[in-house]
This record gives sequence, C-alpha cells and structure tokens, in this order.
Amino acid sequence: MLEIEVKARIDSIPAVEARILELGGVFRKEVIEVDVYYNHPSRDFAETDEAIRLRKVEGMVFLTYKGPKIDGLTKTREEFTLKVDSWDNSASILRALGFTEVMAVTKRRRYLRLDSFEIMLDYLEGLGSFIEVETGGEYEPDVLFDFLRELGVEGSETRSYLELVLEKQLNMKKS
Amino acid sequence: MLEIEVKARIDSIPAVEARILELGGVFRKEVIEVDVYYNHPSRDFAETDEAIRLRKVEGMVFLTYKGPKIDGLTKTREEFTLKVDSWDNSASILRALGFTEVMAVTKRRRYLRLDSFEIMLDYLEGLGSFIEVETGGEYEPDVLFDFLRELGVEGSETRSYLELVLEKQLNMKKS
Repeated sequence: MLEIEVKARIDSIPAVEARILELGGVFRKEVIEVDVYYNHPSRDFAETDEAIRLRKVEGMVFLTYKGPKIDGLTKTREEFTLKVDSWDNSASILRALGFTEVMAVTKRRRYLRLDSFEIMLDYLEGLGSFIEVETGGEYEPDVLFDFLRELGVEGSETRSYLELVLEKQLNMKKS
Repeated sequence: MLEIEVKARIDSIPAVEARILELGGVFRKEVIEVDVYYNHPSRDFAETDEAIRLRKVEGMVFLTYKGPKIDGLTKTREEFTLKVDSWDNSASILRALGFTEVMAVTKRRRYLRLDSFEIMLDYLEGLGSFIEVETGGEYEPDVLFDFLRELGVEGSETRSYLELVLEKQLNMKKS
C-alpha cells in the first residue's frame, strides 16, 4: 500500500485546527500513541531508512514495517501493518529474533478529516507540534503542499519522529 | 511460556484415538493447519534450532516463534505466538525484513483432551501419522511418556515436521 504523506512543523495546534474547521474539516478523535522502534539484527535501519514499529493505541497493538522513502520531498513509503493480539508477545518475538529496541516515542494525536485528506495534529513532549496530511496514491504531492499553504503552514519535515528524537539527543550530547 | 510436549510416530490414528476415548478422553475438533516456515536473514535456523512459522487454521492466522529445544528428550521449547489479522501482510513484513520461505507443511489435526493432557493426532500427506501430547510446565516429561505407553505408543520423535519434511526431501534426492 502506497500512501502520499507530508509532514511539517507548526507553532500552534489550536490555530491550525481552527483553520481546518473553517475550511469544512471535521474533528474525529484524539488518541495517545505509544510507539517503540526496533533495529534489525543484521541491517542498520538508520542507514537503510526502514523501520519496524510496535504501536499501542486505543487498547490495540499494531506491528508496522516501513520501507525506505521513495522520494526526497514527501514521506511516501511502502508500509505493511499487522494488528496483533499482544504487545508482550510481539516484543518477545522481536527480541528473540535479534531485533533491538531503539527508542520509545509517545505522542498526542488529533485526527481530522477534510475531503480526501486525513489530517493528524501531533504533539510530542520535548519535540513540539506537527501536522501530517495523508491521502491515497492517486494524488500528486503538490496537492498536499498546496493544502498546507492554505493552512498557513510552510516547509516540510521529511524526517520521522524517531529521527527527530535521535537527532535531538545527539545535539544535547554535543552541547 | 514453557510447554512440555512429546511427539511419536503412530501406525493408525483411529486405533490410538479409540484407546484415548476408552480412557475417558474427549474428541474436541478436527482442523486443517497450513504452516509456512521461514529462515532468519542472518542466522541459520536449521543450526540454531529455532523457527518462525506462519499458520492458517480455522480462518485465523498466527505468527509463532519457537526457541531451541531445551532438552534432547522432549520437544520442550520457549514459544511466543501472536494472533495477527492478515496472512498477506505478515508474509510481506517477513519478506521485507529478509526472512525467506523455507517450506509449507499442511496437516490434518484432530484435537482430544484427557485430564490435563492436550492430545493432537496429526496426519501429514507423504509423512504419515503422529501423536503429540502437551501439558503445562508443572509436569515431568516422564508423565507424558508413561501416558504414551498406556496408549501402546513407543518411541519419541523430537524432530519437527519441518525437519522431517526436509530430511525426507534430502533422502529422495540421495536415492
């Protein structure tokens, strides 16, 4: 499954959300997502730009593989997601296979919908606020960037939250 | 989770099943299990005596990791099982992570229960008939072997069906 997805840093979630609602968007739900990222036993995912993620959200657990980003502009990747019945057994299987825990990332995520756009407004402690917009593979990335501009959002963040957290830790060690 | 488990080859499933019912056992169900085994991207599971298995049974899909056998007598291993919501996505994730399909094994399995024993009578095309008996970790393996003798079953098969199928293919190539 291919998703077209863009992400950008924002100053204020309430301000961007108000603009989306003005444009006819609908608030769907707010959730807390706890993600744990793993590295591969014999490949360095930081180099191959892949990820294995275990996610807990709304009492459910999902295991997701993300392939390398396909272009340099958007966050478009190949993704496969499994709904699984146990966080602990997932973690045990990954550990037994030699996958190692890299990082846990927790975020508050607000879901909105506007036409064919799935919009997520994310807040991560220590990292700030972000907007992500997703749509089906039939759209050009330009459509998403035009939409971001309509919201008053400039710029694009192609790094994953995992990468942003790791870079922040690295910078804290340097200074 | 540790399970004590023994397996032995039998001549006739109906004869063994009749003896189990005589002893007060109860027939529970018959299922068809389709298993696909994978090898690890950087370890040879044939050498480490581990396994990753994707199983389809009664419309459900399970992903199981099996650790090395803990003793030489029984099939006791560490096992972790996940119920997952998609065979195709499971296979796609395993493939993307570099796991390779080794073998598909299909069997007809009849489940019976007698006291604390879970009994499986398996028929595999080209391989023959087997009995497997499982019980919780609080029992000594001897209890299981005593039970097999009570059923008129001698001997023990510690090789997995995967190993038996692979050895049979090897022997066919040799002859």
